[in-house]
Amino acid sequence: MQYELYYWPGIQGRGEFIRLALEEAGADYVDACRRAESSGMGMSAMMRLMESPELAQLPFAPPFLKAGEQIIAQTANILFFLGPRLGLAPDDEAGRLWVHQLQLTIADLVTEAHDTHHPIGSGLYYEDQKPEALRRAQDFTQMRLPKFLGYFESVIERNPAGADWLAGADITYADLSMFQVIEGLRYAFPRNMKRLEPEYPLLVALHERVAARKRIKAYLTSKRRQAFNNDGIFRAYKELDR
Amino acid sequence: MQYELYYWPGIQGRGEFIRLALEEAGADYVDACRRAESSGMGMSAMMRLMESPELAQLPFAPPFLKAGEQIIAQTANILFFLGPRLGLAPDDEAGRLWVHQLQLTIADLVTEAHDTHHPIGSGLYYEDQKPEALRRAQDFTQMRLPKFLGYFESVIERNPAGADWLAGADITYADLSMFQVIEGLRYAFPRNMKRLEPEYPLLVALHERVAARKRIKAYLTSKRRQAFNNDGIFRAYKELDR
Repeated sequence: MQYELYYWPGIQGRGEFIRLALEEAGADYVDACRRAESSGMGMSAMMRLMESPELAQLPFAPPFLKAGEQIIAQTANILFFLGPRLGLAPDDEAGRLWVHQLQLTIADLVTEAHDTHHPIGSGLYYEDQKPEALRRAQDFTQMRLPKFLGYFESVIERNPAGADWLAGADITYADLSMFQVIEGLRYAFPRNMKRLEPEYPLLVALHERVAARKRIKAYLTSKRRQAFNNDGIFRAYKELDR
Repeated sequence: MQYELYYWPGIQGRGEFIRLALEEAGADYVDACRRAESSGMGMSAMMRLMESPELAQLPFAPPFLKAGEQIIAQTANILFFLGPRLGLAPDDEAGRLWVHQLQLTIADLVTEAHDTHHPIGSGLYYEDQKPEALRRAQDFTQMRLPKFLGYFESVIERNPAGADWLAGADITYADLSMFQVIEGLRYAFPRNMKRLEPEYPLLVALHERVAARKRIKAYLTSKRRQAFNNDGIFRAYKELDR
């Protein structure tokens, strides 16, 4: 089956967690909004779907995935659906719930990283919430980020199958997402990450292990991978990286 | 099986979404932290579990559920696990993912409601972030809340099985959570909810339908139901309800 991914063009954003899973698996997919309007895809295709009055299972927001007639939204939910189909999740229910639990905790970290530049309103400009962003970013880099990183480091350390991945003996979609979070954090908070990373060697090694995967490596240097920029979740505002 | 729910005592918080599902199903469960320390339960039992160096599948934070030897965290993940076991989720995979997607969107709304009084740091006091809270609450009540409520209203309206519930012909855990969110919003933002509710008649009717369920009704008047208070997610700060 050819999957169709719908997500805002021009940023990695939450869509990137889905892209990484599809790329690692070598899956057949279309990044719909990045295709030409003339092909029937592009932003208008996404808006048509989101605004269709016939759509019963309405997404609240992108990303969403079209798999045949099924439309699935919420990043962690999409990955829960894709995981077994792409060979990126354990076979048993308990294992799948555990990987999903990790993904939901990654999602919480991603939301908090986003809110460092948008602590007041996601519909307002960063420029309209700079003093608040400064305070929130300070709390994030000093309190929350070390707590999250320490947690994930500990999860890898306790993995009964060995300290290569977050869960089990094989790579899962949660490892790919963890890689992406570290990439994003390095882009947004280079000074803080330089300070923090030595304390989390297993996370750093996991990041390198993902980056070295054949298909991920090819993807990261392809045109399909968009660069980080200051419209996305992770933004390089120097003043927030004290 | 007797389930054990672990969550901070003294508040409804995220634990309440789990409690409502267990109560509606008449499930056998223990609200561990509200039991006496002398019975081997209470807060120490929760801390023992969370700090156990042997625990491989570590929760990042409460709530978590103990089901036999399995420990499951993240509210939406716990409900995904419990749903089919308690008869509160559809039988088919597509239906279960749809209900889970709704639950994850409810979780996003809950986080945003929480952040109205904690926009800067969850570890700081409300008193230390009051001006920021004022701005965030204004954005929430004017922009975000109507967007979320309009979305869920539309989901009920589009339910092919009828406009009684969010998904399908029978009650699911997402309906119970939606009920709880409306309860919480009425507690935290009575003035805004009075203004907004007339626009969302299907949501209001769903709330009443849940409140009238036999077991939920009995639960809400029992000692097991804790009252809302200003330590929880939904807080009655008048200044934030303009």
